[in-house]
Amino acid sequence: MSDILQTLNEEKVFKDPVHRYVHVKDQLIWELINTPEFQRLRRIRQLGTTYVTFHGAEHSRFNHSLGVYEVMRRIIEQLKNKAEWTREDRLLCLSAALLHDVGHGPFSHSFEKVFHTDHEEWTQEILLGDTTINKILRKVGEDFPLKVSEVIDKTSDNKLVVSLISSQIDADRMDYLLRDAYFTGVNYGNFDMERILRVIRPHEEYAVIKYSGMHAVEDYIMSRYQMYWQVYFHPVTRSSEVILRKIFQRAAHLYEQGYPFKQNPDHLIPLMTKNVSLKAYLKLDESVVMYYFQIWMEEDDNILKDLCQRFMDRQLFKYIEYLPTANADEDVYAKLKQLFLEVGIDTDYYLVADSSSDLPYDFYRPGEEGERIPINLLMPNGELKELSKVSDIVQAITGKTRTDHKLYYAQELIEEKAQHKQYAEKVVQIKRLLGISS
Amino acid sequence: MSDILQTLNEEKVFKDPVHRYVHVKDQLIWELINTPEFQRLRRIRQLGTTYVTFHGAEHSRFNHSLGVYEVMRRIIEQLKNKAEWTREDRLLCLSAALLHDVGHGPFSHSFEKVFHTDHEEWTQEILLGDTTINKILRKVGEDFPLKVSEVIDKTSDNKLVVSLISSQIDADRMDYLLRDAYFTGVNYGNFDMERILRVIRPHEEYAVIKYSGMHAVEDYIMSRYQMYWQVYFHPVTRSSEVILRKIFQRAAHLYEQGYPFKQNPDHLIPLMTKNVSLKAYLKLDESVVMYYFQIWMEEDDNILKDLCQRFMDRQLFKYIEYLPTANADEDVYAKLKQLFLEVGIDTDYYLVADSSSDLPYDFYRPGEEGERIPINLLMPNGELKELSKVSDIVQAITGKTRTDHKLYYAQELIEEKAQHKQYAEKVVQIKRLLGISS
Amino acid sequence: MSDILQTLNEEKVFKDPVHRYVHVKDQLIWELINTPEFQRLRRIRQLGTTYVTFHGAEHSRFNHSLGVYEVMRRIIEQLKNKAEWTREDRLLCLSAALLHDVGHGPFSHSFEKVFHTDHEEWTQEILLGDTTINKILRKVGEDFPLKVSEVIDKTSDNKLVVSLISSQIDADRMDYLLRDAYFTGVNYGNFDMERILRVIRPHEEYAVIKYSGMHAVEDYIMSRYQMYWQVYFHPVTRSSEVILRKIFQRAAHLYEQGYPFKQNPDHLIPLMTKNVSLKAYLKLDESVVMYYFQIWMEEDDNILKDLCQRFMDRQLFKYIEYLPTANADEDVYAKLKQLFLEVGIDTDYYLVADSSSDLPYDFYRPGEEGERIPINLLMPNGELKELSKVSDIVQAITGKTRTDHKLYYAQELIEEKAQHKQYAEKVVQIKRLLGISS
Amino acid sequence: MSDILQTLNEEKVFKDPVHRYVHVKDQLIWELINTPEFQRLRRIRQLGTTYVTFHGAEHSRFNHSLGVYEVMRRIIEQLKNKAEWTREDRLLCLSAALLHDVGHGPFSHSFEKVFHTDHEEWTQEILLGDTTINKILRKVGEDFPLKVSEVIDKTSDNKLVVSLISSQIDADRMDYLLRDAYFTGVNYGNFDMERILRVIRPHEEYAVIKYSGMHAVEDYIMSRYQMYWQVYFHPVTRSSEVILRKIFQRAAHLYEQGYPFKQNPDHLIPLMTKNVSLKAYLKLDESVVMYYFQIWMEEDDNILKDLCQRFMDRQLFKYIEYLPTANADEDVYAKLKQLFLEVGIDTDYYLVADSSSDLPYDFYRPGEEGERIPINLLMPNGELKELSKVSDIVQAITGKTRTDHKLYYAQELIEEKAQHKQYAEKVVQIKRLLGISS
Repeated sequence: MSDILQTLNEEKVFKDPVHRYVHVKDQLIWELINTPEFQRLRRIRQLGTTYVTFHGAEHSRFNHSLGVYEVMRRIIEQLKNKAEWTREDRLLCLSAALLHDVGHGPFSHSFEKVFHTDHEEWTQEILLGDTTINKILRKVGEDFPLKVSEVIDKTSDNKLVVSLISSQIDADRMDYLLRDAYFTGVNYGNFDMERILRVIRPHEEYAVIKYSGMHAVEDYIMSRYQMYWQVYFHPVTRSSEVILRKIFQRAAHLYEQGYPFKQNPDHLIPLMTKNVSLKAYLKLDESVVMYYFQIWMEEDDNILKDLCQRFMDRQLFKYIEYLPTANADEDVYAKLKQLFLEVGIDTDYYLVADSSSDLPYDFYRPGEEGERIPINLLMPNGELKELSKVSDIVQAITGKTRTDHKLYYAQELIEEKAQHKQYAEKVVQIKRLLGISS
Repeated sequence: MSDILQTLNEEKVFKDPVHRYVHVKDQLIWELINTPEFQRLRRIRQLGTTYVTFHGAEHSRFNHSLGVYEVMRRIIEQLKNKAEWTREDRLLCLSAALLHDVGHGPFSHSFEKVFHTDHEEWTQEILLGDTTINKILRKVGEDFPLKVSEVIDKTSDNKLVVSLISSQIDADRMDYLLRDAYFTGVNYGNFDMERILRVIRPHEEYAVIKYSGMHAVEDYIMSRYQMYWQVYFHPVTRSSEVILRKIFQRAAHLYEQGYPFKQNPDHLIPLMTKNVSLKAYLKLDESVVMYYFQIWMEEDDNILKDLCQRFMDRQLFKYIEYLPTANADEDVYAKLKQLFLEVGIDTDYYLVADSSSDLPYDFYRPGEEGERIPINLLMPNGELKELSKVSDIVQAITGKTRTDHKLYYAQELIEEKAQHKQYAEKVVQIKRLLGISS
Repeated sequence: MSDILQTLNEEKVFKDPVHRYVHVKDQLIWELINTPEFQRLRRIRQLGTTYVTFHGAEHSRFNHSLGVYEVMRRIIEQLKNKAEWTREDRLLCLSAALLHDVGHGPFSHSFEKVFHTDHEEWTQEILLGDTTINKILRKVGEDFPLKVSEVIDKTSDNKLVVSLISSQIDADRMDYLLRDAYFTGVNYGNFDMERILRVIRPHEEYAVIKYSGMHAVEDYIMSRYQMYWQVYFHPVTRSSEVILRKIFQRAAHLYEQGYPFKQNPDHLIPLMTKNVSLKAYLKLDESVVMYYFQIWMEEDDNILKDLCQRFMDRQLFKYIEYLPTANADEDVYAKLKQLFLEVGIDTDYYLVADSSSDLPYDFYRPGEEGERIPINLLMPNGELKELSKVSDIVQAITGKTRTDHKLYYAQELIEEKAQHKQYAEKVVQIKRLLGISS
Repeated sequence: MSDILQTLNEEKVFKDPVHRYVHVKDQLIWELINTPEFQRLRRIRQLGTTYVTFHGAEHSRFNHSLGVYEVMRRIIEQLKNKAEWTREDRLLCLSAALLHDVGHGPFSHSFEKVFHTDHEEWTQEILLGDTTINKILRKVGEDFPLKVSEVIDKTSDNKLVVSLISSQIDADRMDYLLRDAYFTGVNYGNFDMERILRVIRPHEEYAVIKYSGMHAVEDYIMSRYQMYWQVYFHPVTRSSEVILRKIFQRAAHLYEQGYPFKQNPDHLIPLMTKNVSLKAYLKLDESVVMYYFQIWMEEDDNILKDLCQRFMDRQLFKYIEYLPTANADEDVYAKLKQLFLEVGIDTDYYLVADSSSDLPYDFYRPGEEGERIPINLLMPNGELKELSKVSDIVQAITGKTRTDHKLYYAQELIEEKAQHKQYAEKVVQIKRLLGISS
């Protein structure tokens, strides 16, 4: 039981395209990586459906989780002479970095919206429940799983460790920006991480940044800004997420109605009945979900069938920009909804308003809702200043929530309706509103 | 029907991490990419189980196929003033490049060995059978699907096009070396493709390489050599392939025996009964296979259950180097087999001899079996010389089949047996042969 | 005479670390590169004394000039179907790109300030005067040298060509950001040039940017911003420039005074007497200047000797931040000047106020003084909008001249004075003002 | 005197494009970098005249020397737990790495051949003679300069340290391959240095390589092989070196003859009279040499003038492949020499046989003449095996001295002679031998 605290006889090394090598030196980390719960992350993509837009983005959360661990390992390496770390602090930090995303489900964004699951809660359950991960963590100490969960949950007293894992500039974000940039192939996500690691300083309870490193941090914030607009909020990706959501919604609806599925969706029933055990949750991954989509392509329900075929074959919804207004008479969405209904297109599934601000991302918002710790600069005179107070560039984008509304719709259905004389006039109106040239 | 030969109004561009951008200018190519059969390649990994060794290697065949297309597009761009190309030649070439791998199944290596399928035959069926791809190709001309299939099959009269797609230095290999290097993160696979593209020359019926580009080609051959030994033949990857093969073998065996599966493996039955329709084949992808592995983790058959659990949770077989000998008395494999049987470990599943030369790869073998066209250099005096005659380095590795034998075994089972007194002595012998310190 | 308009039989290719390859296809360009005036740029560094701060920045203007040519070649390639280009327009554009910096002298920044030369004027003289470049350009047409000079001078009627070479986003800037980033090793200068080239559109008389490329342009502007503050205005580089300026100033002063130089500074006398012929100017390069610095290390004049030794051995001036005020009683510079004089340190040479806004750089200032053409976005509706009106980030840094004042001083001299009792008190005051701990 | 052994209060960091950052942590290293002798390396290019072929290759020996230091620092970091290092061993190692090239003169290759200087001897003199470097090294201990010089000279008893600095795989070579590849822009020079650093092991007296790292070492050897043939032996570079050598030869000849130089070549006279003091040697750099070339362009001697103009304006000699034979009647060089003399072209300067094997490079030759320590692999069984015994690829290129003979000649002079009727027939013969079409 005590060798869990040992260093490995021989360091284990993973070849990593982003950080070149991931170094594992501790028995604990090695054992955690080899648990079924952690290996399961190989079957969950890091960027959900982004691969339909950027074909390189097929990397998994396993990939990212190892990366966050490695960034954290390097931060600790840098800080080891600047902060007091016990061996347990170090392992706490590394375990939290490695495991922070372990509760993610398949296609989390869409999934959580429909089934009301929360990957953060599941992460807690995996750490504290009846899992191999829990068994291994308990070898360090009975309260160690709880400590790790508190760090991930940001309720830990160890503010420094919390701030290294989740603040405006943390191991998680540094890894995902670099990694997502690498796999998508865009170069917006690049910034000089090595430099940032060198200017991180522990200051009282938090990590702060030496003023001399401000430009590197500006560059990091700008990378984030660009990645959000260029990659994470990409309208085509959102189109595939809309379809995904609608598939889940339709399946749940059918199940509720007692629809006779050709094959019982055993993996998903617990979600639909809102009675998900940890064991059932851990069986969910993207292979399973894709399996159901495939067999649903042969279901009798036309909507489920059509949506699944769209997702599998990448026949996505088209979209237009859209500015919601309170006045229903002027609202394009409201108007289109009415027209869609009149020509017989189901607006629950085939006309969807989606806004990017729904997504839980922000490129820079200091300390909003007390949640995210802002970036503080350690000035030459020893004072702390919040980044956006010093940097014009960061100031420019701080807190500007640029909500981006779009209307997604199934163009093929409209074309189909266009062939029915009785709808001709309505279809012309629909097309005019959507800016489609006839 | 004629607009299939048109150029797109606006070029479509894919962001690609390897070639920066993939440019699509032709209506035909755009339509082919959007077929269900081509989109299916997103659900089949380029490097099978390599991701268990190199976690970055999660990229799909979709990814690679787009890449081969792009390399071919650039080759044509380079050659356009040096060879006579009709518009149809060009489309033939691009279509063949895009579609050359379209028949691949899930985890092809292991899959084909057990189920005796052949992805090249399936590629032919997809091109010529009742598919969306076939429909689109026929828009170019009734015999166009056949022409494309002949190019991929290397039976086409257009030797130049064949040599650009499959020779010792072709669009396929250039893309996969660069791409696999990029995603795994090793840098062995890098070579100066831009330079090679500039020294390719059409010569009579084939593509040859200007002598001045020899060093770039040497570098490419060395990249291939290194990638094979460092990545493609990696013993850990082979361990996971061994397990995969054993899973399929066990499932087929059980099915044959009339074993009552808890859920009928509908997708795999056609394979087991050797009666696979094109439609059934196209439903096979890695999500489906992984789905079955997951549910089989709860089957009653211990072997199937165990193997699936090993694959999903990455509990792989260990291995030792092994040199087969004809003399059974001296052969380590034969000895171990006997001992395994004596302690009651199933040697059909838990002791496997595997050799890398089984794999259909060669780093450089000029013209072997008339299959692969060798690399010819166009010397300053106008003569042609085969590369290995001119390059010492290539000569050094030419035709040297370095077969690499390994024995894979389930260490956990041996440890289990070790706890039974009656096996103690045998286990000691087993461990000695395997070099395991007790 | 007519073959100057020919394409080369075989394209010439330069290996370039930034653009991978520079392709020369025209006889004219090839001949221009091989002129003595253009080859001379190999002996003039692109970034002056920046190499004392970033040791990799040893690249020459030859390097950069080839790069600007290559970027321009690619722009033309992109635009060729979108704008009407005659063969002569193309050559005009390429020649201007190649030759735009040909008039640069050694360490231009410091040099021009002291000797009141202007590299732009010298570029005009080289194009129009008795040079090999002029002879070659005249082979295209008698008025061709003038046309090229007008493009570089921004007086040409061909606004499109002018805007491609000198606007807020032009071939010159795109090359130098990428190149300077590459050689210094900072990664701030990277942006997606390939993307920008794809979204440049000719619009009436100017080049504009398609709105869909706005984020790539934002990224470019941010690169520029970062490069200016991180590299071009680096205080250590400015220290070496201050010393350089002071060397030239001292030598000119001594010459004026009739000081008997051990070896006549033949190359520099025309500058000192403000009577520089084109022939004399073309002999000036950084080898010659460095040669004089070396022999001046053995001159009798202590100041000249000391300054040259400082430059050669990199014993630079220290610096403090400094905010000038009108009130002399409060101005740190004024106070220090007084104190320096009192302890006997020459304030003409050893205490220098320098501000970065002296440098002719701006990261983004739309259309200031009618000089730089602003970046206009071509909106989806066909309108043009100036970039900073659309982009928050660009808006944030637009026109904010962040002047950066510093005082440079010779710390060694102060330490020397500190050893003389009579200056003890003054030295204490000096040190206090400079923030030096005794 | 004791603080020379201290660690710096704050680590100094150089931004380096190859290793990202160079970290200086020791007072000693910091002081050594700031000596005039070390700063002088900024004025000597790493690759001599290679910049005439690869325009990016303008980097200095200063650049490389910092790089070798940094590689060594990382090796020590890796080895620190595997070998016993005293603080002095470490400083010895780092100092030797930093200073190993400090004796290089301008354009060493050509320079040493003509003036019979030897940069290794000068390195010794700089370490041991009256220099700032010597003063600083002596602060560590009176015998420390000697110890450093013995390491560089390979006569030190500390074989391990010697092997880290000069063997077939050492800090010097690893840095120059990566650096020269970076600055020229070719990618042949890339290999996975990080991996190699991880598999270096001290073994008895030497550094050896763990067998598991063999492929990384093969890749490094291949990089070297490619760099030599693609970059270091490039025929165009050799043409410029031939001219450089001929300039020095002509100047020495003229000086010997009492030729009245317009300006005394003070810096070079000590070389010509073979009486060079350390002080005189240290004044030599490439600026000084280029200065003389420039003023010699206006000398009366036609040969000196012409050669200097050729070098400055890059009007190089042409070349043909050439295979020397003992039989003078068949030897192309002998025949051409005769013909050149008959038409009145000086064959001492305008027809030069040059062979690359003159150059002091070898890509892999284990232990030749006891000079270079071969690469030994540490096999899994604890044995050592010399690399070429294990690696087919390395075996293929081991010891194969591929001498490459070329004849360099001044084509312009031949064309000039062609205009004189009396030489017409001879010129035809010359051109035939040189393969020039009339």
